[in-house]
Amino acid sequence: MAAESRPAPTPLLKDELDIVIPTIRNLDFLEMWRPFFQPYHLIIVQDGDPNKTIKVPEGFDYELYNRNDINRILGPKASCISFKDSACRCFGYMVSKKKYIYTIDDDCFVAKDPSGKDINALEQHIKNLLCPSTPFFFNTLYDPYRDGADFVRGYPFSLRDGAPTAVSHGLWLNIPDYDAPTQLVKPLERNTRYVDAVMTIPKGTLFPMCGMNLGFNRELIGPAMYFGLMGDGQPIGRYDDMWAGWCTKVICDHLGLGVKTGLPYIWHSKASNPFVNLRKEYKGIFWQEELIPFFQQVTLPKDCTTVQKCYIEISKQVKAKLGKVDDYFNKLADAMVTWIEAWDELNPAGAESALPNGPSK
Amino acid sequence: MAAESRPAPTPLLKDELDIVIPTIRNLDFLEMWRPFFQPYHLIIVQDGDPNKTIKVPEGFDYELYNRNDINRILGPKASCISFKDSACRCFGYMVSKKKYIYTIDDDCFVAKDPSGKDINALEQHIKNLLCPSTPFFFNTLYDPYRDGADFVRGYPFSLRDGAPTAVSHGLWLNIPDYDAPTQLVKPLERNTRYVDAVMTIPKGTLFPMCGMNLGFNRELIGPAMYFGLMGDGQPIGRYDDMWAGWCTKVICDHLGLGVKTGLPYIWHSKASNPFVNLRKEYKGIFWQEELIPFFQQVTLPKDCTTVQKCYIEISKQVKAKLGKVDDYFNKLADAMVTWIEAWDELNPAGAESALPNGPSK
Repeated sequence: MAAESRPAPTPLLKDELDIVIPTIRNLDFLEMWRPFFQPYHLIIVQDGDPNKTIKVPEGFDYELYNRNDINRILGPKASCISFKDSACRCFGYMVSKKKYIYTIDDDCFVAKDPSGKDINALEQHIKNLLCPSTPFFFNTLYDPYRDGADFVRGYPFSLRDGAPTAVSHGLWLNIPDYDAPTQLVKPLERNTRYVDAVMTIPKGTLFPMCGMNLGFNRELIGPAMYFGLMGDGQPIGRYDDMWAGWCTKVICDHLGLGVKTGLPYIWHSKASNPFVNLRKEYKGIFWQEELIPFFQQVTLPKDCTTVQKCYIEISKQVKAKLGKVDDYFNKLADAMVTWIEAWDELNPAGAESALPNGPSK
Repeated sequence: MAAESRPAPTPLLKDELDIVIPTIRNLDFLEMWRPFFQPYHLIIVQDGDPNKTIKVPEGFDYELYNRNDINRILGPKASCISFKDSACRCFGYMVSKKKYIYTIDDDCFVAKDPSGKDINALEQHIKNLLCPSTPFFFNTLYDPYRDGADFVRGYPFSLRDGAPTAVSHGLWLNIPDYDAPTQLVKPLERNTRYVDAVMTIPKGTLFPMCGMNLGFNRELIGPAMYFGLMGDGQPIGRYDDMWAGWCTKVICDHLGLGVKTGLPYIWHSKASNPFVNLRKEYKGIFWQEELIPFFQQVTLPKDCTTVQKCYIEISKQVKAKLGKVDDYFNKLADAMVTWIEAWDELNPAGAESALPNGPSK
């Protein structure tokens, strides 16, 4: 076990958090994360050819699922899990038995803060998830629960309890998460700006959720974290995390849960090929112009008191309103239902995501 | 004229921006701001006893208004301008003939960025005001128009033009802008965190706007920047900027204008007396619990196509819905109407704030 510089004997949430990693290659990147990840359990979802062997560095506690495993475990319902696309990672969320999930891409490395210190991204995500969010009113000094900060003058006292945090969205130094057109136009752009803030994305505001460096409370929001139908046999890629983010945000807003973004940063090492990305994305670039207005107007009825009920309701609205955009959305709506069925099969009744506070107003 | 380190010959918007300063004392604080403020015109609004002489350091171009001037210029309509309260600053917005306003408190000094360099707060506000906002969708890398940043993957291309920026809300290092209860509980708290970000406050989200370090486009939003009835003869203080902020944000959302917060920081030198503040604020602490839900539900009809029309409509809703909270709100609603009448008198028809893009959806 690698020694940490601080005398922190038990890592936070050691037995309550799984790290989910989708990959097609040997996981050498874990060496750099060893001081931070080794105490935790890993769920590795192997993307692509199941006959390939993925090497995991020694000393890590992990389970690994390839396509054969997914087919065996889910049977016909395996159709909802993408193949040859990192969207398959959501299978890991489903088989986890833990309360919290952290997911990271295998081209993400440990970043340094402005003082030169290695950033323990997982620790920051856990802090974000364990302290409340403030979705109902904006605090100009960012996270009011952070050391040295608070709610500013004019912030209603009745809202200072905040809301339970469901999602912690972390950012990326070096290669920013740009779409193919932006990558093509700005091939040399690197993100060098370290913004020392965590903030809540306000209720009613959608955001582009990136799956590269993402933590969430699986009990509060897990069933909404479906990464859709991407990759092999699908007309679109690179919208898996976006889809999950839009559904998740709408459901969090309905259930009175919070979504944070900002710290922690990881070091994103390598830009994916913009030409390949353009092929995957181009339909999405058109479709997102219809998807955003769709998600901005989604309203969920009061009897949607669990994430599952909310998600099924969204699937119905997807079919009714987006089916005419492209038949793909009819397939996706069906897959959303299959996903929830599979989730509930693997996570029987008692574990159903319960509503902490009743639906928000 | 002090030399700037960079070879910037003409300061930005030199003839299009007024600096408005409310004060009760000699303006020695301007010495520190000389390199940044001296090229601009100052409008000083003298708060309190008009017989006192306010000294302004040599070399500044300014006009100064005391209570006698306000009474003379506005006649009976002077009743809408607060007396013995820094809320009187909004008189300066009204008499300005410039397109942009920057307002700053006289206990605010030049802050330093993390590299130790003096921050030209005004220059940053101007940058914020001259480049668009993004109120309709959240960008996780903050201001997408900043050098080294852009819109991230999943950001709809149709929204990348952004919206015209009406307001630039700057922050404070050292003494944070806390209410009296928080001041009392945390007397030693200082804001030392420099967050290197400018962000748009999303459409539909209210925020606590502080008047200490604030820029705005007077042509786009000026008539909404009324700082209410505070101070002498009023039951409340320290809610002047909050009131202006709530009205402004609702109107910006309706008209499709943007509000930014974040950089620049100023150095706030001295905490005001928390006991005095508590006396001024305590009714506001109760009332804001009703005011926030009120402003969250305000909707403006489509025919409100100018700031003035929006503001008059809000004044009607204030009277109808907040009059029962306290009779103060009936007086305030009347003063809001008087303010608009006075504004239009001093800023005749051609100058009426016109709508750039039609009301937003």
